[in-house]
Amino acid sequence: MKIAIDRGAPTPLHVQIAHAIREQILAGALPGDGRLPPSRKLAKALGVNRGTVTQAYQVLWSEGLIEGRVGRGTSVLPASAGSETRYAPLPWETLLTGGSEQDDREVREFVRLIDRDDLISLAAGLPAPDLYPMDALRSITDDVLAREGRTLLHWCPVEGYAPLRRQLAERLAGVHPNEILILSGSTQGIFLLARALIAPGDLVAVQSPTYIGALQVFRAAGARIVGIPSGAEGIDSAAIENVFARARPKLFYAVPTFHNPTGETMSLETRKRLLRAADRHGVPVLEDDPYAMLRYDGEELPSLKELDAHGQVLYVSTFSKILFPGLRIGYLAAPRPIVERLKSGKHLQDLFTNSIGQAAVFEFARRGLLEEHAARMRDEYRARRDAMAEALRRRAPSLAFSSPEGGYFIWAKIPEGSAARELLREALRKKVSFVPGDLFSPDGRERDRIRINFVSHDPETIEEGARRLGSALRALRREGRTESREEPGRPIV
Amino acid sequence: MKIAIDRGAPTPLHVQIAHAIREQILAGALPGDGRLPPSRKLAKALGVNRGTVTQAYQVLWSEGLIEGRVGRGTSVLPASAGSETRYAPLPWETLLTGGSEQDDREVREFVRLIDRDDLISLAAGLPAPDLYPMDALRSITDDVLAREGRTLLHWCPVEGYAPLRRQLAERLAGVHPNEILILSGSTQGIFLLARALIAPGDLVAVQSPTYIGALQVFRAAGARIVGIPSGAEGIDSAAIENVFARARPKLFYAVPTFHNPTGETMSLETRKRLLRAADRHGVPVLEDDPYAMLRYDGEELPSLKELDAHGQVLYVSTFSKILFPGLRIGYLAAPRPIVERLKSGKHLQDLFTNSIGQAAVFEFARRGLLEEHAARMRDEYRARRDAMAEALRRRAPSLAFSSPEGGYFIWAKIPEGSAARELLREALRKKVSFVPGDLFSPDGRERDRIRINFVSHDPETIEEGARRLGSALRALRREGRTESREEPGRPIV
Repeated sequence: MKIAIDRGAPTPLHVQIAHAIREQILAGALPGDGRLPPSRKLAKALGVNRGTVTQAYQVLWSEGLIEGRVGRGTSVLPASAGSETRYAPLPWETLLTGGSEQDDREVREFVRLIDRDDLISLAAGLPAPDLYPMDALRSITDDVLAREGRTLLHWCPVEGYAPLRRQLAERLAGVHPNEILILSGSTQGIFLLARALIAPGDLVAVQSPTYIGALQVFRAAGARIVGIPSGAEGIDSAAIENVFARARPKLFYAVPTFHNPTGETMSLETRKRLLRAADRHGVPVLEDDPYAMLRYDGEELPSLKELDAHGQVLYVSTFSKILFPGLRIGYLAAPRPIVERLKSGKHLQDLFTNSIGQAAVFEFARRGLLEEHAARMRDEYRARRDAMAEALRRRAPSLAFSSPEGGYFIWAKIPEGSAARELLREALRKKVSFVPGDLFSPDGRERDRIRINFVSHDPETIEEGARRLGSALRALRREGRTESREEPGRPIV
Repeated sequence: MKIAIDRGAPTPLHVQIAHAIREQILAGALPGDGRLPPSRKLAKALGVNRGTVTQAYQVLWSEGLIEGRVGRGTSVLPASAGSETRYAPLPWETLLTGGSEQDDREVREFVRLIDRDDLISLAAGLPAPDLYPMDALRSITDDVLAREGRTLLHWCPVEGYAPLRRQLAERLAGVHPNEILILSGSTQGIFLLARALIAPGDLVAVQSPTYIGALQVFRAAGARIVGIPSGAEGIDSAAIENVFARARPKLFYAVPTFHNPTGETMSLETRKRLLRAADRHGVPVLEDDPYAMLRYDGEELPSLKELDAHGQVLYVSTFSKILFPGLRIGYLAAPRPIVERLKSGKHLQDLFTNSIGQAAVFEFARRGLLEEHAARMRDEYRARRDAMAEALRRRAPSLAFSSPEGGYFIWAKIPEGSAARELLREALRKKVSFVPGDLFSPDGRERDRIRINFVSHDPETIEEGARRLGSALRALRREGRTESREEPGRPIV
């Protein structure tokens, strides 16, 4: 084996040695069962430290080119001949890594089923397209492109468009622009945080039920999930304390304001108790706050982030619920070490968030149009909520629900003994859809609940949707159906 | 312990049992050291199968609420009191998961250093902003917003805007629209594929040197990396065969056309041999093809994807190098099972790629403007390549390089015994920058190489950049500097 090393070259000696051996292996100049000289001997021959040779062998081992066996020394791995012709395609399914991302496909297929064009969909978590401020966006986009399009389209820092970061920091009291990370939608923030804080097997606490997307992300991160009951009566702060004290979760994920799916809002007292428990037990809290600007009644409450005296709250929100989902602009506020780590993760995923969208959102708010639009949305959505509640009481009187103070959703209980998935089958026949409750449950409960979006449609469509839903409920009751006992208990997400 | 179960309810019995016990634990109704009844006994009391109780206990165990010890049965985990007041912030650094995403920060800081505004940066991998087709984009964006903005801004399938998928499938011979996934930049495709195909410890083969972003993604996935030498002489197909046969990588990542950083293009013969070796040894090939439309001389070669008879090639590309990086639109072509799996991963990350950008890119190509723009870029970039090569020969004659047939980069060798990082220090003093070669090396080599972007600047700036680089080279030689011997051999990415 010939190895030439150059002590004057800038490349470290062990890299030079590894490279020389690698070249000979790759050129087939070393036989497949060829032993490599013991490190001591090679080191002496080359006049280097033995550690240098060991390092070189470690590099080659990590590259899969050599193996070491006790008592047999180090040798080049034998070559497999391979099959001479393999015209079959690769067995892709067997090449995939394991993981619960598979489960997600079921949810997506389900979403496709309930979100078809021929239905009145009360299922989607989407705003009302008829109310989109299209003229303002067109004019702003054109202004942004004309004024700074060339710069924006060239490059943007991974952490986001600086004016938007400053603007968001001003809006979120007590946050520095360096603590803001712009996201390609708020789910990216949950994904990045899960990647940064959750190792497989770690425990995440959530409200139960909770946002499907968060459950999917935590499952994909290999987390175990404990749900803290958080139904129409709100979450119990003693239960939070108990979970933090016993199970010591790595993260508590919460949607405290106009919760998805229940519509409930955590009281100020519970917020304070939650933060005290988090502080006492050292549990980071991830506050997901997409509906903050959409309060229709009652008094504004401070976010967990605003109440957070000790920097324990990680905050994500989005422009998808108040403006347009298609812009894909969300944001995160968190302590600097977290933002720094997340920047690395985001850099690997998409380098940065589309910059025209970022500048458009910034300009929208700078001109005062965001507040104006939010005020209009509150009026419209309040009317739609009331229209939905009224229509449901009239058309689907067997549903039990209370009207939320804000947000997008009514969370309704269907009659005793019925299963939401059975109701959905009837509903699809009547051309209306909703999301059955168990999709939001970390443990397969909520089978007698349904989530109804009241913002997407105009009042006439809301009326017709409620009529169809009532008709599905009556059909279900006539047939006396309940969910098949054979259905596996495994939660879907 | 009181547990009420309802056999008529749609919720499975083990979920009901787990829920009842959980509620009592969370309400503090069970003491911290409280034993739970043996599953056999509880099953008898409830009149259910023992397996049902075992399942319920497993749920509670996975939620971190109970523990089982041999010989001691199952008990509720004791509560930790927590500290009464913890006014210190959370120790975030210790809460972070491990992982090589940390390394990425060093690269980003390095990029900031060499990409400062007061420099002539020959470092970035960016197109020429002065050549961006701004007027066309403005007019197309406005048309797109006017015509279908409301739909686009509402929602888009995770796999992408259907007309763009069809258009891309037509452009890539033999690919079905269902085999296309639109990406938020092509790096997202590499990230998603690494997530789907690479488990920690798996081996990935790459050309050496190769694209920094791909190295970062594979490192973050926990991959071991073996580099197949691929310098100015091109990659050796016998070496590829040898690595596939001996090391059996899970993936081979290649930039076969106008390689980043070397500018080299793999010959047709080598492409065919690579695919034969991949087929024989069952190795999937990830072809990264961002510069495909930017050939300045010589004959077009088919992509690996086009040559791929057995569906082994996963293909990613982007509009960032031919249009605007800020749009964040890339795409992937792969067999259906891979696209389906990647859709799940993408759904968790960003739901879908910003849809106005997708529609704008589609419309740009539909109007024939993409081909027109690409032709113009080829003329401009060819002239810039020649200007750079000529200026370097005159102003920095100690550099050795050959002119590539396309793409963005000249890969130059600096004089014997010099280190690119030393040269960079001199270059920054002279207000010019480039990327030192070792950043592209999977194993810390290429310390005497530099990557020079020749497309970003107009010919006058190119001339001045080459002049400053020549002056840095002379300064380095005068001082007779070489890289310090103490510098650790650990590669930066």
